[in-house]
Amino acid sequence: MQVIIDLCIIPMGVGVSVSTYIAACEKILQEAGLTHRLHAYGTNVEGEWDDVFAAVKRCHEEVHRLGAPRISTNIRVGTRTDREQTGADKVRSVEKKI
Amino acid sequence: MQVIIDLCIIPMGVGVSVSTYIAACEKILQEAGLTHRLHAYGTNVEGEWDDVFAAVKRCHEEVHRLGAPRISTNIRVGTRTDREQTGADKVRSVEKKI
Amino acid sequence: MQVIIDLCIIPMGVGVSVSTYIAACEKILQEAGLTHRLHAYGTNVEGEWDDVFAAVKRCHEEVHRLGAPRISTNIRVGTRTDREQTGADKVRSVEKKI
Amino acid sequence: MQVIIDLCIIPMGVGVSVSTYIAACEKILQEAGLTHRLHAYGTNVEGEWDDVFAAVKRCHEEVHRLGAPRISTNIRVGTRTDREQTGADKVRSVEKKI
Repeated sequence: MQVIIDLCIIPMGVGVSVSTYIAACEKILQEAGLTHRLHAYGTNVEGEWDDVFAAVKRCHEEVHRLGAPRISTNIRVGTRTDREQTGADKVRSVEKKI
Repeated sequence: MQVIIDLCIIPMGVGVSVSTYIAACEKILQEAGLTHRLHAYGTNVEGEWDDVFAAVKRCHEEVHRLGAPRISTNIRVGTRTDREQTGADKVRSVEKKI
Repeated sequence: MQVIIDLCIIPMGVGVSVSTYIAACEKILQEAGLTHRLHAYGTNVEGEWDDVFAAVKRCHEEVHRLGAPRISTNIRVGTRTDREQTGADKVRSVEKKI
Repeated sequence: MQVIIDLCIIPMGVGVSVSTYIAACEKILQEAGLTHRLHAYGTNVEGEWDDVFAAVKRCHEEVHRLGAPRISTNIRVGTRTDREQTGADKVRSVEKKI
């Protein structure tokens, strides 16, 4: 089952600056070979369900390992069975109607 | 790694009434033996990370099987390494300060 | 326009324990006269759109005033024009199908 | 109070294809003069709190007017008092650490 998620990881208990933790997660997504794109409030990630959620788990493990005692993440998860659609397809289908 | 999530599954392409799909997901959480509590905009679920996310995947599979061609889910995911804390603990720690 | 939201406010830069801030927000919702119910990963809030979002803004202002330099909130927002439905109605419509 | 939100509007009861509705919301954000950027699972929007949430309300009103009887939206809301930071700043602060 293919999935497109949007992942927003919030490390808590480490002060207001969290970019080091987010950068570590981007590296995990990169190493996992998943299509991913950072934006100002999260990261789009695409792939097989198990691969994507294994990477999300590794992100939590790594952010804890780097020193964050608490994490609160928000994930949007999209699946569909009617047809294949990439994140880039989703953006294009909106943009051509604006 | 223990996790508390809040799961909000939105079946798309099946009309405005989605309670049948949500009830099917509640049964999956029940059968998985996970602590869970339904509220008006999602369900709190607690357990081991792999057990919880395996149940989330089964929910998506079942909602598709029941006829929804598209699903958009929102999940909040909380983990912490400083101490153990259940969902009931979280509610109590707020309520005693109100 | 009536709205049901689920509000999850995450104060950042104040350590791992945030129940004081959440309790302050519960008081704001109470004083605003909005129907609200705390759960383990947020709070259901119901009312007129403008009243509900005015209260959300006051929560952000109050959490900052109490000392949190940064806040990341997640809100689910439900509106419908086909019929009136309270949060309690939503829960009942699922529970009777389980 | 400046705010950066990420807005994900899900029209329900209108079938699986929702790009027409999302495009209508993009136009509302554009006409509101708000900095905004579409991605594959939402739209980053920046501005003054009241302007941003007035636009979110107009999006709900317009999506209903276009025929969707039910909407379930997810919004991430970020405010901070320690310093000014745009969405582009947030992306750069992560990218330079990858």
